[in-house]
Amino acid sequence: MIDLALLGCGGGMPTPERYLTSLLINYKGRKILIDCGEGTQVSMKLLGWGFKTIDIICITHGHGDHTVGLPGLLATIGNSGRTEPLTIIGPEGITNIVNGLRVVAPYLPYPINIIEAPADSICLSFMKDGLKIQEDKNHHISETIVISTLSLDHSAPCLGYSFYITRSPKFSVENATLNRVPKILWNKLQKGDKVIYEGKTYDPTLVLGPKRKGIKISYVTDTRPIEAIANFIEQSDFFICEGTYGDDEDFEKAVKNKHMTFREAAAIAKTGKVKELLLTHFSPAMANAEIYINNAKDVFENSKLGEDRYIKTLSFTD
Amino acid sequence: MIDLALLGCGGGMPTPERYLTSLLINYKGRKILIDCGEGTQVSMKLLGWGFKTIDIICITHGHGDHTVGLPGLLATIGNSGRTEPLTIIGPEGITNIVNGLRVVAPYLPYPINIIEAPADSICLSFMKDGLKIQEDKNHHISETIVISTLSLDHSAPCLGYSFYITRSPKFSVENATLNRVPKILWNKLQKGDKVIYEGKTYDPTLVLGPKRKGIKISYVTDTRPIEAIANFIEQSDFFICEGTYGDDEDFEKAVKNKHMTFREAAAIAKTGKVKELLLTHFSPAMANAEIYINNAKDVFENSKLGEDRYIKTLSFTD
Repeated sequence: MIDLALLGCGGGMPTPERYLTSLLINYKGRKILIDCGEGTQVSMKLLGWGFKTIDIICITHGHGDHTVGLPGLLATIGNSGRTEPLTIIGPEGITNIVNGLRVVAPYLPYPINIIEAPADSICLSFMKDGLKIQEDKNHHISETIVISTLSLDHSAPCLGYSFYITRSPKFSVENATLNRVPKILWNKLQKGDKVIYEGKTYDPTLVLGPKRKGIKISYVTDTRPIEAIANFIEQSDFFICEGTYGDDEDFEKAVKNKHMTFREAAAIAKTGKVKELLLTHFSPAMANAEIYINNAKDVFENSKLGEDRYIKTLSFTD
Repeated sequence: MIDLALLGCGGGMPTPERYLTSLLINYKGRKILIDCGEGTQVSMKLLGWGFKTIDIICITHGHGDHTVGLPGLLATIGNSGRTEPLTIIGPEGITNIVNGLRVVAPYLPYPINIIEAPADSICLSFMKDGLKIQEDKNHHISETIVISTLSLDHSAPCLGYSFYITRSPKFSVENATLNRVPKILWNKLQKGDKVIYEGKTYDPTLVLGPKRKGIKISYVTDTRPIEAIANFIEQSDFFICEGTYGDDEDFEKAVKNKHMTFREAAAIAKTGKVKELLLTHFSPAMANAEIYINNAKDVFENSKLGEDRYIKTLSFTD
């Protein structure tokens, strides 16, 4: 089970009506935040899920509406008593951006690791003291979160993110017995570790049943609708996507400003065969997003409008 | 006449209950902003006085709760169509802070001038296209704003600000006639310019009556109550001052964190013989500032509690 909260649904600038677009993923009490605009920490405070347990912050790109809140949030996380390292992931230039913004928050009681423009997917393990980046990518049997990125088409280097929460296979007494695995090793093997016992190597697969389906969440903003997105978000259980403009007549603005209309976002959701689309990053000029929702639903029925602190719980289905 | 709006009354971090402490001064439609924390631009939007006409931004110090909103606000001012230069004034280190934060707002459609740790007072003239810094400080006859600064005692270089809005003397037909000033020169002299006419120099004082009292506003946060403040704010018509802690029992916290209690702020107001004290920069831990107001009123009767978008209009009295 995993809880998501869309902290805001606005784009461009913070307004009294909408917090800026940002997503908080809560996995067994540990958190991943995606984007941090001006006011994101206030929406987080209203949400009430806490600050100390934010282990990873993913930044899509360096524009202010996705980053300005970062130094204030980092300070607030510090005030919450965190001493464990925090990892920030972002596109090319993120190190420079984080270091620039930290001019007003230079001293933090915890270290910050920055991963700039990751070439490969990043695999997180759930540890007692937080989500940690796994060095050994072959160890995929227990529940982990795999973060993948895609370069988008915006006016600054920009990454889309997908989060795949793997699910560990069930323990299979049948397999363990068939494979003649000593009972004393069952527990350790179930956790995903290889074991050498009495000169023989035992692989975890010897005691486990078939693979089970995980949960896929994807987050795509800001961008034009490039072809690669559909493949990147394929089969997502939940697809959060920018729809800066609701009105089809704003198509030219969308092209000019490197954003998308509701209809374009819905077309990606359809091609990518996702289960559900949540639209967000609404232009401040669009007072009522509601009146345009059918522009998305015409193309992809299970489209919804984002709202500040829209909460979604996803469960394993397999 | 001059309008003031306290945009927020919180300190430390933005919360759902209070915007961060910041003051907007509106003088004939042109604006001076003091401090810009996370969310200040949202409170400005709620206030509705506009963004384009902000000519000067004064920053007290580099802590995030006074600066994080700067890059977002600068971008919003750009989006409002401003092309005229904007001046930022601040303590030692302000150039570095502005340049650091601007990593997310590098391109603006107007130039930014930074005045770091000004040694002297800064005199502003009201021009058609905004408040401009006067080079000739002797030209003080028409209405101007004189900005003075004081180094405070905080955990970072920090400036207190005072704003003195001068008032031009009345035109005196009696003096002009007594001093035998040709009528053709009266208008020009009244505006404060010296005139050379038929080989003779005429000084503006020849046509003007006695000096008239201006309006003094002072803004002091964050600091311990050092002796120099009372003199700096002396005779202010309106004194905005930090009172991070209302409870007298938080005195030790105030000392440790380099802030003030309500009682300490009120003592400065009394010594400085100001007309009115507005307390602000309340600690997020202080849910109800109201219950402590008498700790200030005991010392200085005309003490008030700041509120988000508390508005005050000051008029010339002389």
